[in-house]
Amino acid sequence: MRLATVHDGTRDGALVVVDATGTRAASATAIARSLQAALDDWDNAEPRLRGLAADLDAGRAPAMPLEPATLLAPLPRAYEWIDGSAYLSHVRLVRRARGADPPPTLETDPLVYQGGSGHLLAPTEDVALVDPKWGLDFEGEVAVVLGDTPQGTRASDALAHIRLVVLVNDWTLRELVPAELAKGFGFFCSKPASALSPFAVTPDELGAAWRDARVHLPLSVALNGTRVGSADAGAMHFSFADLIAHIAKTRSFVAGTILGGGTVSNDDPARGVSCLAERRAREIIEHGRPLSPYLVPGDEVALEMRDENGRNVFGTLRQRVVTP
Amino acid sequence: MRLATVHDGTRDGALVVVDATGTRAASATAIARSLQAALDDWDNAEPRLRGLAADLDAGRAPAMPLEPATLLAPLPRAYEWIDGSAYLSHVRLVRRARGADPPPTLETDPLVYQGGSGHLLAPTEDVALVDPKWGLDFEGEVAVVLGDTPQGTRASDALAHIRLVVLVNDWTLRELVPAELAKGFGFFCSKPASALSPFAVTPDELGAAWRDARVHLPLSVALNGTRVGSADAGAMHFSFADLIAHIAKTRSFVAGTILGGGTVSNDDPARGVSCLAERRAREIIEHGRPLSPYLVPGDEVALEMRDENGRNVFGTLRQRVVTP
Repeated sequence: MRLATVHDGTRDGALVVVDATGTRAASATAIARSLQAALDDWDNAEPRLRGLAADLDAGRAPAMPLEPATLLAPLPRAYEWIDGSAYLSHVRLVRRARGADPPPTLETDPLVYQGGSGHLLAPTEDVALVDPKWGLDFEGEVAVVLGDTPQGTRASDALAHIRLVVLVNDWTLRELVPAELAKGFGFFCSKPASALSPFAVTPDELGAAWRDARVHLPLSVALNGTRVGSADAGAMHFSFADLIAHIAKTRSFVAGTILGGGTVSNDDPARGVSCLAERRAREIIEHGRPLSPYLVPGDEVALEMRDENGRNVFGTLRQRVVTP
Repeated sequence: MRLATVHDGTRDGALVVVDATGTRAASATAIARSLQAALDDWDNAEPRLRGLAADLDAGRAPAMPLEPATLLAPLPRAYEWIDGSAYLSHVRLVRRARGADPPPTLETDPLVYQGGSGHLLAPTEDVALVDPKWGLDFEGEVAVVLGDTPQGTRASDALAHIRLVVLVNDWTLRELVPAELAKGFGFFCSKPASALSPFAVTPDELGAAWRDARVHLPLSVALNGTRVGSADAGAMHFSFADLIAHIAKTRSFVAGTILGGGTVSNDDPARGVSCLAERRAREIIEHGRPLSPYLVPGDEVALEMRDENGRNVFGTLRQRVVTP
């Protein structure tokens, strides 16, 4: 089942179910007025939403054309956005470029940070860059949306709390990062609003590619229409189940919490990059200095993930950088 | 106007208006079913809620007894919880105890971190401590609840975005902090769920004590019934307006975002402490080692703030530490 949120003038938008082709949708507001409302009452809403999806594909439900420009983020505002850094090749590469060792606990203790969740960008929403010197970069990610998740949840029980999977562009202002991290409290101003893919999908939509609490498909990343990355998203060192167990050590999470796996990254340079920071890191290692500039107004970044049948599972998250 | 949220089995609870004595309330669900709903539509809801409050105090509205045990946090789940560290005496003291210099930008660049907001504890809710070796500590704070706040908001325009003021106990697991901060991504597991005071109040309830975007009243902190702190909350180096301008540099915030000022702290040791970490820092400086233990099951922490007329503005935030 694939779900999306249509702009209707409300803060949370209107929930729709997406058909198998990704081009038509059926209003689901009679079941749940928003995706958050569905997640709040998932056991009741899920079977009814699946029934509507079946009716839509069978031509038994009223369908409307699905226009990407009318979509909001599946959750336009969410209660938490937590981002891991589970692809160790990313951490190692970025640290190597600046001559630093990875943290000694890299392989045993997940890196996570708490991000802002009150305002999540729509999948075709422009990204207004106030100052190009801030060093705007994209970060292509896979994330899961949780149901209620108690404190103390173990990795072996964590899968049951994963409701949906989405793609995320976790926009980052690279030139603001060093001074901010030096203060010791993590990212804040260096992480502007993230964007979500058009569709949030139940894990079964991924078929056999969803296993070991990872999505074993390549994440396609394009900059100005040119493919720059197709890294295997399954290369997470920590799975989503591991990340859930880590974050649930000292608190619980409410339905609608979004948990990211971090910038998708592979050891093999031929798979390209899911962020410019990695490309610049490789350039520093090879040439002694970065050659690729950060983004400027006019640049366009697109993320999508196709399954083995070529289906664009999450729709295309395509945004343009603009001057405010 | 003082607002509270009564447990009614829903995730967001039921909004009530609190009377002048703090002992009775009137249901406000006919105006807005929850505090978040009121904040989402504040321009419409605020005058009607104020009208209800006036009717309640005049005996013209149906009143119910206000039982602290039935209250949830005013916002049981919020879209963002952002915490500053605006009391520089706290930063200086804690750093001095560990022989470190404060960051060079201490007085010009606010320290803030993004905390978890999906689950905020009720004002009389027990705090379950899984492992006393985690070093549980309280942090008494004042926070503001924002309305919609655009990116780029300046300090001079920030006051207009402050809707409500609350007290916060920003519980911290001190012994998890060093290893977590060493990883460079800020706090996560070391910050379990925070608790909010019974009442969220409009700034005018503070009278002349609300000025310069600060609350100029002492925050009373009691541990097991003994007063341990009464620091002047007005001693913020950065005001709430300054903090808003800082966080809004690179993104916007939705209505219901909670912004804390950090652990209330004064230079004068006679004002006591709003967290055990400060007391332990003074002990380290004086005796070479900390003497005060962190909290254990059975301990009780109470926060409240009385105005110059002795009125308990926010109600009492009183929680007991328990074994899960």
